[in-house]
Amino acid sequence: MEIYFLGTGAGMPSKERNVSAIVLNLLAENNSFWMFDCGEGTQQQILRSPVRTSKLEKLFITHLHGDHIYGIPGLLTSRSYQGGDAPLTIYGPVGTELFIRTALDVSQAHLTYEMKVIEFAPKEQELLHEDQEFAVYVAPLVHRVSSYGFRIVEKEQQGSLRADQLKKLGISSGPMLGRIKQGMDITLEDGTVLRAKDFIGPPVPGRIITILGDTQPCLYSLELARDADVLVHEATFAEEKKQLAVAYDHSTAIDAARTARDAGAQALILTHISSRYQKDEAMLLVDEAKQTFPEVYLARDHWSFEVAKPKRDCH
Amino acid sequence: MEIYFLGTGAGMPSKERNVSAIVLNLLAENNSFWMFDCGEGTQQQILRSPVRTSKLEKLFITHLHGDHIYGIPGLLTSRSYQGGDAPLTIYGPVGTELFIRTALDVSQAHLTYEMKVIEFAPKEQELLHEDQEFAVYVAPLVHRVSSYGFRIVEKEQQGSLRADQLKKLGISSGPMLGRIKQGMDITLEDGTVLRAKDFIGPPVPGRIITILGDTQPCLYSLELARDADVLVHEATFAEEKKQLAVAYDHSTAIDAARTARDAGAQALILTHISSRYQKDEAMLLVDEAKQTFPEVYLARDHWSFEVAKPKRDCH
Repeated sequence: MEIYFLGTGAGMPSKERNVSAIVLNLLAENNSFWMFDCGEGTQQQILRSPVRTSKLEKLFITHLHGDHIYGIPGLLTSRSYQGGDAPLTIYGPVGTELFIRTALDVSQAHLTYEMKVIEFAPKEQELLHEDQEFAVYVAPLVHRVSSYGFRIVEKEQQGSLRADQLKKLGISSGPMLGRIKQGMDITLEDGTVLRAKDFIGPPVPGRIITILGDTQPCLYSLELARDADVLVHEATFAEEKKQLAVAYDHSTAIDAARTARDAGAQALILTHISSRYQKDEAMLLVDEAKQTFPEVYLARDHWSFEVAKPKRDCH
Repeated sequence: MEIYFLGTGAGMPSKERNVSAIVLNLLAENNSFWMFDCGEGTQQQILRSPVRTSKLEKLFITHLHGDHIYGIPGLLTSRSYQGGDAPLTIYGPVGTELFIRTALDVSQAHLTYEMKVIEFAPKEQELLHEDQEFAVYVAPLVHRVSSYGFRIVEKEQQGSLRADQLKKLGISSGPMLGRIKQGMDITLEDGTVLRAKDFIGPPVPGRIITILGDTQPCLYSLELARDADVLVHEATFAEEKKQLAVAYDHSTAIDAARTARDAGAQALILTHISSRYQKDEAMLLVDEAKQTFPEVYLARDHWSFEVAKPKRDCH
């Protein structure tokens, strides 16, 4: 599992950073990519990345500002050109479907796959999607327009089977092994009861990834980021521009670091960087954030972050 | 006057060619840029070009396929960010305004300048715009969706004043010189009549630039390109793919060359090149076109063509 950054700039593209788009590479987990936001030029960034639109299964939209959505119509139509035929589900704030349908209708685009738009408008943290491997939660943030954050929770995985111990007891295949695997206790012919839990290692905890839309510091940033293995947070400004951050409902790097610290996150990735911080100047944001929170990374276009299996135990 | 190519690919972007956008650099003529089509990623291409959105005065749209329009909303909002305050007029087929207004409304974008959309649906060649320097005509082409071409006609410019001859007659400044300049005859104190036409060189003919949308060969391609100094024509396919060109209402390079030849154009620029022709392979299109028409150029992203003053006389 890795987080791949296609666009890490704020507001409008610069030569260095395209507008927002983040991909969660889940090839190892469920053979798919999930995308978060899709600013203009995202499909061009994809051409220079390992991302394949045919395997793009879900697109989550944090808010409807142009630098987060204007790349959607082109991405959808190019996915058709590229032979994509698997369904694609888009989750976004109210208005997402109007924008997409109008663009596709006006340009008379006919997609070769089923596209579904699911709109949300939660007042508090809600479950947005659940499948065998993941649950995705959404909650409202505080921005000039309705903006949301996502908490992607990987489910606990069953511990590994202690096959060697079972083999010693003469169980190496067959229905009894199957029942142990499913966590069921079994009784041998001699009346011995084998407890499944004695032959299955401790469960492996899932990872928690939090990806937030544009926001000023707020309650649900904290809630979404609680104990996250990684928090992806906007850091549009350095502290010297705190007034701009407040005026435009954005965050500084220190705001992001406080949220990471208070939420007990393991790592913080800063993105959505204003074009006023070019090249090495953007390290100022990391330096400021590190005064508050130790594990800080600066996203840049085409950079990726490997999300390791958490060290913590399952709850 | 030069034609600057921001995007020269067909259908979807490739690493080599972005989707359609062409700029007519009129800085020398009226201190503005005019753009023709605006596919996704055009604003990113502009970052690496001499084009300045603040001086973008008009945008002409040939048709509503996504690879020709999905870059408009981002261009408009970034023009605001960049401090653009001069009015911008967009000319496009019916549907242009719905697409733009919906994108801007959904994203709650507020432009810092006046934007006007003028929609057209001509059945034959019509005058679309006229000012002191230029007249722009529009006519329907033949494509899967309504597609149009533009003929930009620079007006004749008055010939240069023969100042030396006038000086010999004692006229080097003042109201009499002004009247000659305006083409008015004057009478000297001794009763001599000076004819303005004797002191003004022959008028300088204007240039004719023809820029067509996607089309198969058709009547109005010819009419729009009549005697053009330069014809910008799509050449999506080489002749081996003629069947695809027919099936999708596109042109081959030879189709474009025939139109240039039959219309009496001076030069032909091929653009809207399928990504199947990469790098040097695209020269096949030029080679094929040259069998029919001598002066052929292959557009590529960030290439420009200087439109020289025509050698022909004024009509």
